[in-house]
Amino acid sequence: MTSPNGLICFTNCLLPTEDGALVQQDLWIDERRGVVLDSHKTFFQRKERPDRIIDLGGNILSPGFIDIQINGAYNFDFSVYEGDDEAYRAGLRRVAENIVETGVTSLLPTIITQERSLYPKLLHLLRPYSAPNSATLLGWHAEGPFIQFAKRGAHAPQFLVPAKEQVKSFEDVYGRENLAESEDWLMAGDAQDAVGVRVITAAPEVDGVMASVEELVRRGVVFSIGHSIATTDIATAAVQRGARLITHLFNAMPQLHHRDPSIIGLLGASPHLSSPQSPTSSGFPAAVAGLQRVPSLVKRAAAQEGPKATSEAFDDVQTPPQTPVLRAQEGFELGLQKGKVADLAFERPFYELIVDGIHSHPNSVRLAYSAYPEGCILITDAMKILDPNLKDGVHEWRDGKRFVKAGDKLYLEGTDTLAGSVVTLDKCVRNFSRFTGCSLGEAIRCATFNPARCLGIERRKGTLRPGADADLVVLDRKGKVLSTWVGGREVWKRSE
Amino acid sequence: MTSPNGLICFTNCLLPTEDGALVQQDLWIDERRGVVLDSHKTFFQRKERPDRIIDLGGNILSPGFIDIQINGAYNFDFSVYEGDDEAYRAGLRRVAENIVETGVTSLLPTIITQERSLYPKLLHLLRPYSAPNSATLLGWHAEGPFIQFAKRGAHAPQFLVPAKEQVKSFEDVYGRENLAESEDWLMAGDAQDAVGVRVITAAPEVDGVMASVEELVRRGVVFSIGHSIATTDIATAAVQRGARLITHLFNAMPQLHHRDPSIIGLLGASPHLSSPQSPTSSGFPAAVAGLQRVPSLVKRAAAQEGPKATSEAFDDVQTPPQTPVLRAQEGFELGLQKGKVADLAFERPFYELIVDGIHSHPNSVRLAYSAYPEGCILITDAMKILDPNLKDGVHEWRDGKRFVKAGDKLYLEGTDTLAGSVVTLDKCVRNFSRFTGCSLGEAIRCATFNPARCLGIERRKGTLRPGADADLVVLDRKGKVLSTWVGGREVWKRSE
Repeated sequence: MTSPNGLICFTNCLLPTEDGALVQQDLWIDERRGVVLDSHKTFFQRKERPDRIIDLGGNILSPGFIDIQINGAYNFDFSVYEGDDEAYRAGLRRVAENIVETGVTSLLPTIITQERSLYPKLLHLLRPYSAPNSATLLGWHAEGPFIQFAKRGAHAPQFLVPAKEQVKSFEDVYGRENLAESEDWLMAGDAQDAVGVRVITAAPEVDGVMASVEELVRRGVVFSIGHSIATTDIATAAVQRGARLITHLFNAMPQLHHRDPSIIGLLGASPHLSSPQSPTSSGFPAAVAGLQRVPSLVKRAAAQEGPKATSEAFDDVQTPPQTPVLRAQEGFELGLQKGKVADLAFERPFYELIVDGIHSHPNSVRLAYSAYPEGCILITDAMKILDPNLKDGVHEWRDGKRFVKAGDKLYLEGTDTLAGSVVTLDKCVRNFSRFTGCSLGEAIRCATFNPARCLGIERRKGTLRPGADADLVVLDRKGKVLSTWVGGREVWKRSE
Repeated sequence: MTSPNGLICFTNCLLPTEDGALVQQDLWIDERRGVVLDSHKTFFQRKERPDRIIDLGGNILSPGFIDIQINGAYNFDFSVYEGDDEAYRAGLRRVAENIVETGVTSLLPTIITQERSLYPKLLHLLRPYSAPNSATLLGWHAEGPFIQFAKRGAHAPQFLVPAKEQVKSFEDVYGRENLAESEDWLMAGDAQDAVGVRVITAAPEVDGVMASVEELVRRGVVFSIGHSIATTDIATAAVQRGARLITHLFNAMPQLHHRDPSIIGLLGASPHLSSPQSPTSSGFPAAVAGLQRVPSLVKRAAAQEGPKATSEAFDDVQTPPQTPVLRAQEGFELGLQKGKVADLAFERPFYELIVDGIHSHPNSVRLAYSAYPEGCILITDAMKILDPNLKDGVHEWRDGKRFVKAGDKLYLEGTDTLAGSVVTLDKCVRNFSRFTGCSLGEAIRCATFNPARCLGIERRKGTLRPGADADLVVLDRKGKVLSTWVGGREVWKRSE
């Protein structure tokens, strides 16, 4: 397979651009270094043409998909550790080796709320991991335990905790070394030195969480608002402190109430109402720069905790005369020691969507996407039963419980209870294009460039820029995966 | 004031275009005929220059605002008839003469649910009405009585009725002559012949309503979904039958639930999921063409009536395994006698927003607007207390009750109960621009061209096209009303 000079040229293909278009263009990669090349520069500097030319027959050559929230797959559950490191590592390997058939070349295994003593055991096992013929594990997404009881979903209630000692509480649970400052973790040559915790899903209204956001963000963690009942004010304050993601939008959060649209409403937040500075399009700086502590606001936020009684039937006459606008502005002003609005930066957060046609209605998906296309990130949030080769029917789960898989729907046997997601990310991309009417190129962006930007790794992943990792997926014009490449090597190919 | 040849040229001004831009351009009108002129054509045909040139000093010359939902103003309540025709007419006149100071040149007085015997008395009084120095009354907006009990808001529960005899029930309440077929009512020379009922707000899930939509629409009525608990399927079916408006979006309807986003979710509905035909941009034809009756779907809809129990806290794990996508498609297929999707047209409905900063949070407003900018219509939904000259404080309402007006907030004395809106439409335009970050030109479109398109009168109102009525409002660059013109005459001017 190796060509003499290691240069491969993909031709007769459509390349997704970072703004969601599809352009007809060749792509050169260096198979040995595993990176995308600047074809012009390479040609003139190395005076070489690629020895290997691959005609893609008019199909799409996309950056490999990135799944930033996935609980398991191929019968392995990232959150289940049974005392055997080797068995756990074998499970990880199985997922990483197999998931490439769904177009995924990078993923963030997600650990849901655990009994506290399990975290240190999982820590070392879930460091970023890259092996031949496998998708890359980018570290982990810690979903819980700092979440809201009332929105805990499937998380074990007895393990939920507040962050009474603020960042120290986070360190105590996830391990201090996993939250170490690291400017450039993905770029480090040795992945073993990299920070483990890449994303933390937490509820900003939980005691001590809001006060931890800035420091967590400073250390390079993506703070994601989720499993939360945050009011608009609290959610806004979290974003002003650096929160840059919403975990599985719509699920495990308050419905959109028009007078306090809460977390979902952040998609409609006007940067110019919060700050006259225009938001930057990527990276952390805008969200972090100039942030100031606002203890009084946090105190007010805490006072507003607890589920709101909603009286749907009479919401138009019996709602107390709130003035959310005034409250929001007051909140902003509280945050401004000299009343200068410009001091508080505001950028709308990215948001995850599970587009399996079950967790959110197509109309909801389109509503969110049209509000803020640049922030949309497709995730599977899949359970260990994810395996595109698995037949529909009854499957074992754990504790004697059994799943019923019916297409992309998964529920507990004998009940109507949804048991999580079983959709593949390539299917999500196709669904998304169909539900929203967006082009396949725009849908691809939501599984590639957008998640990479959220993680701050868009120079290396989720892009076809020269210098990026040659993680690629070939899709037909309908979005079906034909082959997958990691680090310049083909690791999976559809058999005819 | 009259110039010899009746031609007026406004110069040094910005004109809002139908797509929301502001362009520097002169506008010619014919003061005698009261219409906008094509300046080039007029110059070459009549060989005349305007005798009167008005320098607007760089301000904005907009079409007059159109308020399609307003309950009263200047201490007159459209829904209160006290047996005295002359007093009622005097009240109407007072509103029409005064409202122009808010930039409104056309309005649809709104009648909320009444005791049945009152409708015939109000009918004749509320025919379209146009008088010198006054805003034009375009007929009326009938809000109720065919609405959902559970979302009745301030409507009197004892007067709510189903439409058991379908269109005949509507005729019985509003009067047959007010629902007469009329292709071109606004264009008729004699307004007294015009149809009175212009918009009907009703709940499609109420017995007999869904089956009436097509016939009402055929007669030229705008069917608006409101005060309703319609599911996504029912709301979609109503739109497929011709419903083209949502009454005060967010208020008096279910919150957005991501698995059944209901009426609000229509803003995210994908035309191509419902129909491969692309929606037309204006007029009724797309919504009406090719509609077919779908009795089985309506029956299913009826079976789903009744308020849904929502379990916020556990919505992500305990929701039954619905498959809204499949249900929706099944619904669509039921509507297609031969399974041809193309037969059912689908165009997203217009939606009204009360942008007083109280009835909906700015984030909600922006979320809706970004989902479907072309459908946005600003309304005041104002109570009789609307009067920009009125001071804050306690004011009489009726039955011994009293309002407290505090800025744009209005509530019942001694309670926290919102008592409706008191915002002016020009203030809504300014708020809207601020909340959404859109330009003033785009905000103006939501109070001019969009409502005109919804009513199907965009050739005459809400536009500066040649031939349109010279209903104009001069705004400064911040959106403050400086003067108002109706039919080519200045009817109000701000005193310095």
